[in-house]
Amino acid sequence: MTREELISQIKLKQSFLCIGLDTDISKIPSHLLEIEDPVFEFNKQIIDATKDFCVAYKPNIAFYESMGVSGWNSLQKTLDYVPKDIFSIADAKRGDIGNTSNMYARAFFENMNFDAITIAPYMGKDSVTPFLEFEDKWAIVLALTSNKGGLDFQNIKSEEGKQLFIQVLETSRNWGTDKNMMYVVGATRAEQLEQIRKIIPNHFLLVPGVGAQEGNLQEVTKYGMNTDCGILINSSRDIIYAGKGTSFAEKAREEAQKLQQEMALSLAAAVI
Amino acid sequence: MTREELISQIKLKQSFLCIGLDTDISKIPSHLLEIEDPVFEFNKQIIDATKDFCVAYKPNIAFYESMGVSGWNSLQKTLDYVPKDIFSIADAKRGDIGNTSNMYARAFFENMNFDAITIAPYMGKDSVTPFLEFEDKWAIVLALTSNKGGLDFQNIKSEEGKQLFIQVLETSRNWGTDKNMMYVVGATRAEQLEQIRKIIPNHFLLVPGVGAQEGNLQEVTKYGMNTDCGILINSSRDIIYAGKGTSFAEKAREEAQKLQQEMALSLAAAVI
Repeated sequence: MTREELISQIKLKQSFLCIGLDTDISKIPSHLLEIEDPVFEFNKQIIDATKDFCVAYKPNIAFYESMGVSGWNSLQKTLDYVPKDIFSIADAKRGDIGNTSNMYARAFFENMNFDAITIAPYMGKDSVTPFLEFEDKWAIVLALTSNKGGLDFQNIKSEEGKQLFIQVLETSRNWGTDKNMMYVVGATRAEQLEQIRKIIPNHFLLVPGVGAQEGNLQEVTKYGMNTDCGILINSSRDIIYAGKGTSFAEKAREEAQKLQQEMALSLAAAVI
Repeated sequence: MTREELISQIKLKQSFLCIGLDTDISKIPSHLLEIEDPVFEFNKQIIDATKDFCVAYKPNIAFYESMGVSGWNSLQKTLDYVPKDIFSIADAKRGDIGNTSNMYARAFFENMNFDAITIAPYMGKDSVTPFLEFEDKWAIVLALTSNKGGLDFQNIKSEEGKQLFIQVLETSRNWGTDKNMMYVVGATRAEQLEQIRKIIPNHFLLVPGVGAQEGNLQEVTKYGMNTDCGILINSSRDIIYAGKGTSFAEKAREEAQKLQQEMALSLAAAVI
C-alpha cells in the first residue's frame, strides 16, 4: 500500500486506528474451540466487526508462531481475509545481517504479502535496508518502545547527550523515505513527541499502548500528528478481548467505534 | 542441554565448532531438487557428514521462514534429525514485550525443542527474561555483531564512555546465569575480546564470521577462551557450500574436519 492510499483511507474512515491481532488460543471464547481453526474464526469475526473503524490490522507473529504450522496457516488465512484497502502489519520484530533480512522480507512481503513489518534496529543499516527494496512495502523500525525494559538501553545518553532512540531516528531516517519507513514510538509524553517530530516531521509513527480511557489519546494526537495525520495508534487486547462469550465481536466493535469517534474529533480539529 | 553436557561434548569431540544451516534452496545442488524435501535432504546429508566434528548446529530461521509452511516442516525435520548430544540453536533474533517473548520461547523451546535461541536486546530485560524460564534452555543475546551495520549503534559511547555493546553485557549478565545465557560476539580483535572477558569471564560466546583461512581462529581462541572453553565458533557458508554437485557433503566434512583439527590444537594448548 502506498502512503497516499493509507492517508486516503484515514480521511475516508476518519480513523487512524490499528487493531492488534494478538490472538491467544487460551483467551478466545470457548464456543469457538469446537471449530476447525478457532484462531482464524476469532480473527474473522473480529475483522468483520471492526473493519469499518480501523485502517490497519497488526497480527502479533509470536502468537501464531507459537502454534507451529497450524498457526502459520491461521495467520495466512487471516491476512487473506483482511480487506485489501486496510493496511496490514506483521508485528515480527525481525532484523539480521543483509542476506538474512532479505529472507525475512521475502517471507513477509512475498510469501505472505503483508504491507509492513516491524524491525529491531540493533544490527544497523544492512539489517533494515533489505526490507526497503520491495515496492509499496514498509519497514517499521523500533525507536522507543513502551515496555518497562525499553528504558534499559533506548534511553542511554551518548557522549553527545543523545538518547539511543534519538540516534536510531537520526541515523536511520535517510535509509529509506517517509514512503517506505515508519517508526514504533511508544511515547505518550508531550516533550518526547515534540523531540521526535523535530527529527522526523513527516514519517508515520506507530504508537502502541494508547487507550481511550487513559486520556492520552489527546496528548498523542496533539503532539504527534502532522498534516497527513502521520500516526497509527494501536490497540490490541482492549479491543479484541473487550467482551467474553458469544458477544465478543460486538463488544470489540463497540470499543473500536469509541476510539474511532475520538479520532474523528482529532482529525476534524486538525482539518485532516 | 546443560552447560556441563555441552562442555563434556567439547572435550569429547575436541571441537567447539557450530555449523550454521543457512540452507538456501537456490544454492543447494541441483540433483537434490527432485527429492520431495530438498532442504531437509541437504541438511540431513550435511549433518551425517559433519556431526563428528561439531558440537552445535544453528539453523538460520529466516531461510526456512521464507519458504512458508514447507520451510517450517523442513526445519522441524532437520531439528529432529540433529543428534541429541549436539547443541541446537535457533538463529532467530527474536525479542518483544514480555508476553510476546514468552510466545516466541514456547515456539522454539516447546513446540520445536531447540536448546537455544538468539535474541536482540533492544527492548531490554522483559524481552529477554521469558526465554530464561525454561529448564536447560538458553538465550543467546546479541552483544556485538560482525556485520557492517553493527557499528551503527553498538559502538556508540555513552556519557560514561561505555559502548552500547558493553552496556548490554553489563546490564544483562545478571538477568540469568552463565548456565542459561550466552552472547553473540562478532569480535576477532584481541582488545575487544579482552574487554568482553573482563565483564563476562564465564559465559559462553557464540562467535560468527571466523574462518580457518583468515587466521583469526587463533586470535579468538587466545583471547576468548576460558577454562571451560567458553566459546562456540560458527561457520555456515564456508562449510555447507564448500563443494558443489554430488560431493557437497564430502567437501563439507573436509572443511568441518579442518576447523576441528585446529580447534583440537587450541584445546590441547589450553589443557581443556
